Amino acid sequence: MLNNDFEFDNLIKIALEEDAPYGDVTTESLEIRGNGKGVFLAKEDFVLCGFNIASKVFKYIQKDAKVFSKYKDGNFIKKGMQFGFVEGHLDTLLLGERTALNFLQRLSGIATRTKWAVNILRGTKATLLDTRKTTPLFRNLEKYAVRVGGGTNHRMGLSDAILIKDNHIECMGSVTEAIKKAKKYNPFKKVEVEVKNLKEFEEALKCKPDIILLDNFSLEDIKKAVKLKSKDIPLEASGGITLENLSSVAKCGVDFISMGSLTHTVKAIDISFEIKRI
Amino acid sequence: MLNNDFEFDNLIKIALEEDAPYGDVTTESLEIRGNGKGVFLAKEDFVLCGFNIASKVFKYIQKDAKVFSKYKDGNFIKKGMQFGFVEGHLDTLLLGERTALNFLQRLSGIATRTKWAVNILRGTKATLLDTRKTTPLFRNLEKYAVRVGGGTNHRMGLSDAILIKDNHIECMGSVTEAIKKAKKYNPFKKVEVEVKNLKEFEEALKCKPDIILLDNFSLEDIKKAVKLKSKDIPLEASGGITLENLSSVAKCGVDFISMGSLTHTVKAIDISFEIKRI
Amino acid sequence: MLNNDFEFDNLIKIALEEDAPYGDVTTESLEIRGNGKGVFLAKEDFVLCGFNIASKVFKYIQKDAKVFSKYKDGNFIKKGMQFGFVEGHLDTLLLGERTALNFLQRLSGIATRTKWAVNILRGTKATLLDTRKTTPLFRNLEKYAVRVGGGTNHRMGLSDAILIKDNHIECMGSVTEAIKKAKKYNPFKKVEVEVKNLKEFEEALKCKPDIILLDNFSLEDIKKAVKLKSKDIPLEASGGITLENLSSVAKCGVDFISMGSLTHTVKAIDISFEIKRI
Amino acid sequence: MLNNDFEFDNLIKIALEEDAPYGDVTTESLEIRGNGKGVFLAKEDFVLCGFNIASKVFKYIQKDAKVFSKYKDGNFIKKGMQFGFVEGHLDTLLLGERTALNFLQRLSGIATRTKWAVNILRGTKATLLDTRKTTPLFRNLEKYAVRVGGGTNHRMGLSDAILIKDNHIECMGSVTEAIKKAKKYNPFKKVEVEVKNLKEFEEALKCKPDIILLDNFSLEDIKKAVKLKSKDIPLEASGGITLENLSSVAKCGVDFISMGSLTHTVKAIDISFEIKRI
Amino acid sequence: MLNNDFEFDNLIKIALEEDAPYGDVTTESLEIRGNGKGVFLAKEDFVLCGFNIASKVFKYIQKDAKVFSKYKDGNFIKKGMQFGFVEGHLDTLLLGERTALNFLQRLSGIATRTKWAVNILRGTKATLLDTRKTTPLFRNLEKYAVRVGGGTNHRMGLSDAILIKDNHIECMGSVTEAIKKAKKYNPFKKVEVEVKNLKEFEEALKCKPDIILLDNFSLEDIKKAVKLKSKDIPLEASGGITLENLSSVAKCGVDFISMGSLTHTVKAIDISFEIKRI
Amino acid sequence: MLNNDFEFDNLIKIALEEDAPYGDVTTESLEIRGNGKGVFLAKEDFVLCGFNIASKVFKYIQKDAKVFSKYKDGNFIKKGMQFGFVEGHLDTLLLGERTALNFLQRLSGIATRTKWAVNILRGTKATLLDTRKTTPLFRNLEKYAVRVGGGTNHRMGLSDAILIKDNHIECMGSVTEAIKKAKKYNPFKKVEVEVKNLKEFEEALKCKPDIILLDNFSLEDIKKAVKLKSKDIPLEASGGITLENLSSVAKCGVDFISMGSLTHTVKAIDISFEIKRI
Repeated sequence: MLNNDFEFDNLIKIALEEDAPYGDVTTESLEIRGNGKGVFLAKEDFVLCGFNIASKVFKYIQKDAKVFSKYKDGNFIKKGMQFGFVEGHLDTLLLGERTALNFLQRLSGIATRTKWAVNILRGTKATLLDTRKTTPLFRNLEKYAVRVGGGTNHRMGLSDAILIKDNHIECMGSVTEAIKKAKKYNPFKKVEVEVKNLKEFEEALKCKPDIILLDNFSLEDIKKAVKLKSKDIPLEASGGITLENLSSVAKCGVDFISMGSLTHTVKAIDISFEIKRI
Repeated sequence: MLNNDFEFDNLIKIALEEDAPYGDVTTESLEIRGNGKGVFLAKEDFVLCGFNIASKVFKYIQKDAKVFSKYKDGNFIKKGMQFGFVEGHLDTLLLGERTALNFLQRLSGIATRTKWAVNILRGTKATLLDTRKTTPLFRNLEKYAVRVGGGTNHRMGLSDAILIKDNHIECMGSVTEAIKKAKKYNPFKKVEVEVKNLKEFEEALKCKPDIILLDNFSLEDIKKAVKLKSKDIPLEASGGITLENLSSVAKCGVDFISMGSLTHTVKAIDISFEIKRI
Repeated sequence: MLNNDFEFDNLIKIALEEDAPYGDVTTESLEIRGNGKGVFLAKEDFVLCGFNIASKVFKYIQKDAKVFSKYKDGNFIKKGMQFGFVEGHLDTLLLGERTALNFLQRLSGIATRTKWAVNILRGTKATLLDTRKTTPLFRNLEKYAVRVGGGTNHRMGLSDAILIKDNHIECMGSVTEAIKKAKKYNPFKKVEVEVKNLKEFEEALKCKPDIILLDNFSLEDIKKAVKLKSKDIPLEASGGITLENLSSVAKCGVDFISMGSLTHTVKAIDISFEIKRI
Repeated sequence: MLNNDFEFDNLIKIALEEDAPYGDVTTESLEIRGNGKGVFLAKEDFVLCGFNIASKVFKYIQKDAKVFSKYKDGNFIKKGMQFGFVEGHLDTLLLGERTALNFLQRLSGIATRTKWAVNILRGTKATLLDTRKTTPLFRNLEKYAVRVGGGTNHRMGLSDAILIKDNHIECMGSVTEAIKKAKKYNPFKKVEVEVKNLKEFEEALKCKPDIILLDNFSLEDIKKAVKLKSKDIPLEASGGITLENLSSVAKCGVDFISMGSLTHTVKAIDISFEIKRI
Repeated sequence: MLNNDFEFDNLIKIALEEDAPYGDVTTESLEIRGNGKGVFLAKEDFVLCGFNIASKVFKYIQKDAKVFSKYKDGNFIKKGMQFGFVEGHLDTLLLGERTALNFLQRLSGIATRTKWAVNILRGTKATLLDTRKTTPLFRNLEKYAVRVGGGTNHRMGLSDAILIKDNHIECMGSVTEAIKKAKKYNPFKKVEVEVKNLKEFEEALKCKPDIILLDNFSLEDIKKAVKLKSKDIPLEASGGITLENLSSVAKCGVDFISMGSLTHTVKAIDISFEIKRI
Repeated sequence: MLNNDFEFDNLIKIALEEDAPYGDVTTESLEIRGNGKGVFLAKEDFVLCGFNIASKVFKYIQKDAKVFSKYKDGNFIKKGMQFGFVEGHLDTLLLGERTALNFLQRLSGIATRTKWAVNILRGTKATLLDTRKTTPLFRNLEKYAVRVGGGTNHRMGLSDAILIKDNHIECMGSVTEAIKKAKKYNPFKKVEVEVKNLKEFEEALKCKPDIILLDNFSLEDIKKAVKLKSKDIPLEASGGITLENLSSVAKCGVDFISMGSLTHTVKAIDISFEIKRI
């Protein structure tokens, strides 16, 4: 992810066309020519993520633009640091600036928040997971940002693992029936089941799914489930998890905690890009 | 926007392929057949936005799926309300659920937060503007959500209006020179100039741009600028505006206030989608 | 798969443009007007697969073309049977004929051969698997055809399950090291390891992967492995499996047998499409 | 074909996305870093075809990957030969391996089988032709493979030559009428007509098409047609031609023999790709 | 061409996005709601061409828009005639108007000018041909317009017929060598050769290509060539042909005359589109 | 525009595929190998435009093709001048020739005609404008050619400026109403209104739009409007403007004159491309 030369070219192309369907009229009107250097400047502390895709934005506009940094994704950047540089035509820098920042600020926002959550979990046995609550078309990028921040990816989408949710159980009529069918389907897919109360949990436990998800359980019920659980079937807690209650949930002893807000409620990191003529 | 039959089909297609590159293996493993009804349920108060694109997700999967609601974008939805319904094959509902919600929760989040900001500005002369700090590929949708929330769109991108920013002035050497050139370029584009202090402001004022943007001015400096300003040249304040200081800035008497956070720092609205077999 | 209205439209569009970049000049030169009926006729016995995508070809050309059949994918069709009908403009039928057949003949070929193999395995405990040796861009369709023929899909691609192959072990230096790392990576992915001899097999067994693949083992070695195996770790046999030796391999007691030839060496089913004016 | 830098990039891109929509999780989980060399190894004798597109797969992933071979398409490769090499990042080699092989094995399969057929025809006056029975989206590649194997391409699709088939004659009512119309249509298109018995053949002969196709004629009837034929109108035999009966058909004296199986029933060549760290 | 439901959708989509990347701000600002009727009005005499694609523009925007006309492509439309009608939402009509006209005016311009040229050739044996000098991406549409105007299409592109031009002869060294090679290449392609003087013409004649093109010959030399020509090899005249000298060239007795200006130098037909609220 | 590396790649790709869906069969049949040099030769005087995109055509086919010229877009080229050179494989030159010329001849035609019109306006206060009457998909290129020829772009499309036309006024009922609404809509868009007689002009004048367009006014009425006009509101004349009457219209004193024919009725410049083996 983000190491290959072919990835995200199309995304960048559409993003630039979206921002400048008829070109950058400000730069054109000012007839700005010549070369320049752009500096990425941190306006707050954060975990860097997306520097590669930001670099690709400029290289996509101008193949021989130069981008360099002594940091890489996952590094901690302090407020005030100049953490990256771009050299190229001034009109390249001016055209790419906003698009590059829009990627970088969002992805760094996700990585940073994930890092906070992971720090909260330190010392517990719980692993932090993301969800499918991502921005459409940004699934790979946003889940990459979660990994950069130290989190672990839940399934990537509907195709790579089986997760039986309330709506499926509603359609099937019974937890038992659903798990049985799912387990027979494909030997290469794990089967997780979401349960909404202890009764369903106990039913699920008997069917031996690969993982059980406790959805919107009270802390008390989570603890009960942890006590009842089988050694081989890890438990995931989900629903209404915030940075505030994360620690309490983890202390109940679950194996995984998934937080939708890691990707659906993102605070963009404040980063500026300052251009000088060279 | 969002009324035409052809819009966003491609976005929806890629979003669904992103979520299910090899199909929905859970639903397939459970062999869920037959028809169902899905209900959108509000888990908090919000301003509805994106119902149309959420509807299109289901109709894209199944042409004759039926989607209905007595609400439309811009309406206020109270926590607990069932505000929309989808009828179609169960596997259509299960496949489209997450993608539809991902659009709906994000766009409603933007509209809701915009509405809060607009309410804060009520009684002042200031108009709320968005910025280009949008998610790549979501410019049209996110700026639509700002309009639905009662905000006004700043320029859509680099092609539809001239905005001379600090980086341009750095390249050009002088505010005066830049404005002069830009004004001669094209009779159909407005020319706005961003200034970073009162000195630049006074220089800009003499060149008669269409709008002046006061970037990161202190409240005091904004007030001074408002006093100095020409009747014909509206002022925009920008930089570090939050819901907390929005009112104070407005009271300085500026015509426009732009907030990047309207689109770059979004809290997804909590909405669930519950499916029943029919 | 193949039930949703949006799937494969793009594939069909490119296929038609490939066949007729400047239109169907024969039909144009003959000025063939009016409506007709096309009949799909079996020239040999086979398992039907791809009727849906063949139908979509005609409907893509002409939205109100009508396609009907009393059979569906998976049904056994006897030589001489008229198993499907299309009504539409004569030029629709003539334009779509070859493209529709090219999909249908290939997919039915895969389903039919898969069914033969599955029949051979009847009475053994072995499940038939496919591989990633598919025609580029036809992964979903060809793996669907395997399911229609009664086979089970191995992982769909590089993203949905971990399979440590000889090349990975070569890079990592040790089977043990590789399995350990892989098992820690992601709780939602199964971990399978490919071993090329009994020594590697015994090493792998100790690391408790989810599945072990015996690559190019002799029948004798397969039997030894089956004896040594752990109850919880199913064994897959692979490499040089043909319809001829399939039964012998199965009788060794492996859980899965994967055959690349199911999708890489396909005999198209002989089907004709006869058009009459109506 | 296959010499230009721009060809097939899109095909390769989609093929890689198909195989790894969320990246190569095995390689990622094993954190394989560093450079390696991959070797293409022949597991059977064959005619090489598609080495160029296989090379492009790796260069598409990593622009500066190096691919070299002393062979080129059309060369005969013996079992056991190491006929090609790739140097690049280990994760490039691991990601591209299967996609590159899927192209290479299929195209080489077509070229090899075509070469067999061409060898059978040696000494006769018959030229071997392919058909439009190709895998959708692979028309150019598969017809290229036929040329590499020594065959000649029939028309590429519906746009580049007129071929009046049984379905057209059925729609037009008469062979004579159809040929007359077609000949007047466009001076730059050849007109071929397919006839299904000697009576139609004699009728066609009088109308002087550019080529006549004898569809599913018995050997006896082919011989009769060859005797009756005009010197200026070459004859093509088609329908049920196999490697077994090819020679007999050719000896009847036809000018062209077309075989659908060259492209619709392909045996993939057995080739492996072995990676070593360097 | 233009009869199938799937053609040109993509062209129309990109054309609309080009015209309105962020929507139709005039109509949005005026909040125009409700239904209307648009009338196509001829402001000069012309041959109608492209009505179908103009219709598709509106139906692409609004699936249930209604378009009707009692005329069809090829009909002669007199100045002042209301020759087509569209009913739909007012914003559909306003959004589609310019794009629909841009297609219609250009294609009708080509058909009209072609008709003039065809009329000039009436009574001569010469057939009017177009060339490959078309607007990129409009080859099919512009060559269709030539057919609608009564012209005949030369080859569609580089793939459907062999045309040996001066640059090829320059590369090959000799006319004879070039024709010989080309004739052996493929039995389904005609071989035309371009000659630039009588000497080359006589050399070409001996090699029996399918057609000979006399490039930039004087009237006198054309006449000489016509005298020398073989009965079986038709002659095409090309180069500097205008509506003024077309008749003189035809009278020399050539079989074909090709005019690049039919498609490269087009006068758009003056057509207006008037909208009324209904 | 045209300076960035990423622009127009897709346009060029589709244009080449349109011209050669199955490759360049002439060059293939002649087996032309080796390198060559192509020379662009002016067959008439013109203003160069599009050299960059013509260059990209060859570089798209062959990355290391070399293109050079001492001229650039906007330069005046005299008949007989060799104004550009391409070095590359002979088959690259032969494949790219027509596509490169089709872009170059059309864009240079627009720039040349624009230059004529601009020269006519010299000495008047009128600025020459283009319109939206462009070839679909060529908006950016054709408007660029107008700029190269010395013209000024009117709005680029429906999204970047408000232009209230007769059809809008028809829908709204009143000029006054329409302008009022439009002016309130968005502070970053200019508002122009089209009036069709002096009465509407006077009504519009009172509403203070940014620009007023006099559509199809007689010279006399244009003069009256110029007398009545406000100093701050420039006037644009439009409708039936030709190179012949352009001067008379300008002398009436309008600020802008827009001519649809600049882009909708283009005479391609006569340019040849001659290839030599090197």
